[in-house]
Amino acid sequence: MIPSQQDVQQAFERVAPHVHQTPVLTSRLLDELSGASIFFKCENFQKMGAFKMRGAINAILQLPQADRAKGVVTHSSGNFAQAVSLAAKNLGIPAHIVMPNNAPQVKKDAVISYGGIIYESEATIAARQTMASQIQDKTGATFLHPSNDIDVILGQGTAAIELLQKHPSLQCIITPVGGGGLLAGSALAAKYFGSSVNVYGGEPLNADDAYRSFHSGEIQYNSQVHTIADGLRTHLGDKNFPIIKTLVTDIIRVEEQEIIAAMKLLWERLKIIIEPSCAVPFAALLKDKKTFAGKKVGIVLSGGNVDLTSLPF
Amino acid sequence: MIPSQQDVQQAFERVAPHVHQTPVLTSRLLDELSGASIFFKCENFQKMGAFKMRGAINAILQLPQADRAKGVVTHSSGNFAQAVSLAAKNLGIPAHIVMPNNAPQVKKDAVISYGGIIYESEATIAARQTMASQIQDKTGATFLHPSNDIDVILGQGTAAIELLQKHPSLQCIITPVGGGGLLAGSALAAKYFGSSVNVYGGEPLNADDAYRSFHSGEIQYNSQVHTIADGLRTHLGDKNFPIIKTLVTDIIRVEEQEIIAAMKLLWERLKIIIEPSCAVPFAALLKDKKTFAGKKVGIVLSGGNVDLTSLPF
Repeated sequence: MIPSQQDVQQAFERVAPHVHQTPVLTSRLLDELSGASIFFKCENFQKMGAFKMRGAINAILQLPQADRAKGVVTHSSGNFAQAVSLAAKNLGIPAHIVMPNNAPQVKKDAVISYGGIIYESEATIAARQTMASQIQDKTGATFLHPSNDIDVILGQGTAAIELLQKHPSLQCIITPVGGGGLLAGSALAAKYFGSSVNVYGGEPLNADDAYRSFHSGEIQYNSQVHTIADGLRTHLGDKNFPIIKTLVTDIIRVEEQEIIAAMKLLWERLKIIIEPSCAVPFAALLKDKKTFAGKKVGIVLSGGNVDLTSLPF
Repeated sequence: MIPSQQDVQQAFERVAPHVHQTPVLTSRLLDELSGASIFFKCENFQKMGAFKMRGAINAILQLPQADRAKGVVTHSSGNFAQAVSLAAKNLGIPAHIVMPNNAPQVKKDAVISYGGIIYESEATIAARQTMASQIQDKTGATFLHPSNDIDVILGQGTAAIELLQKHPSLQCIITPVGGGGLLAGSALAAKYFGSSVNVYGGEPLNADDAYRSFHSGEIQYNSQVHTIADGLRTHLGDKNFPIIKTLVTDIIRVEEQEIIAAMKLLWERLKIIIEPSCAVPFAALLKDKKTFAGKKVGIVLSGGNVDLTSLPF
């Protein structure tokens, strides 16, 4: 179930020419505040503004040439829709994006700006899946899942590989955990490219399915998802959970106010724009300072696509 | 009146160990929008969040050892107060900061966090100057001017030197112009480290003293300064104006709405936090696209210290 070192290495080489090698930022003040030495991997500066570009590129590049030419389809209202649109555009193939009819116009505009073809469906998961299936039947396009797909997982992990190549002595890595693709990919990166790196997921308490899954050994679901971290409302899947279960050290849960405070602190001190979901790992570090005290900690800042006109502070 | 190549080179070497070599960002979308190839020098990531750290460090390092030990004094409510505080702290000397008694608490807190000693004065320029003189008399501290001081000017110019070293084929550089230190320093950098670089200042129309000074040949003043670009409300001085008059190509004026729109665009597309003043050179480029069409343009993003709870959009 666990991809090999060769799988991980090949994904890294495959993805590298198609993405930005994003910078790593540090802050003396945030180090003092947290008691750790933190290395922030800025995937908010990635193409289309989030790490999801990496998984989308890798998954499309892994398609057989004949399938690839027929395009790809996904249903998403978030960063993965933009990532698939831009990755497909850059590789010269069509991207069919099913979006709920209540998706904000700003998200539709972003998909359109990256060349995605939008199909509006009813706002239920079932309606979205049905429409995606219809598009597959009609066009021969391949369905891409945003997190429960080995090639997507391997692609997402390439951010942590870059981070470890630049800072090989990292002792911990923390990423957000929503669908689980980034956390699973980062855990694979740490296994093969780090030396004894402990990998943690940061998760909103209000959508703590990954925490409950990790501690029960079975995939759990959220009955409600009242969190500002809108990228972390989804649940794990059968492709990424075995990797997470085997390679991750723990999941740390944080409250809404902790997420907002961490987000504000990162904006103020790093002078960068990050999404609420993106602040969750730093909030987790601040919540559990003892675990990270005196250690070199890598944090993957996952994305920067945020509506500037409705900030939580 | 114009510092020599050796002066500029020595300032660069003097300042380098004490500041961040800040990253340079590019954006395909902003290039498409503007018709130019833009290289953004991110001084918002500088220590204390602005290029002013460079001038403060250089000016303090240039003081004779006996004077330096007695500390420095300035009157400012903005970035220069923070820069002098942090530079002095890093060099182990006291920084006396005169601030108007109506300065926002957040600005006082920033100065205190960097170790500056605050003295509250009445809010008039005369009262501030009087108090600064009293502190000089009492402590033997040296007064530092935020822009009209050759060592400050040489320090501010080191950002443009870094930019030109990384991108030697730049054809234009645009900086904001307020007191004139950054513009004069950047013009010196371009003269000695670039090859035929045209240097422009971007200025708010509502505080266009530098434009009027440049075109009249005499230092002009603002009768009102109703601009969101709060770092650009001051006027030129007798040390920097001769440099600007001789080496700068032109000053481009922009309206308030253009500044706000440019600021929002930089936040959204570069995913970085910049001050309103900092958006003025990019607004100037967008206003005068013809001048920069097809050219490689460096823009110094001057700082990122902004109150996140009162944004103009």
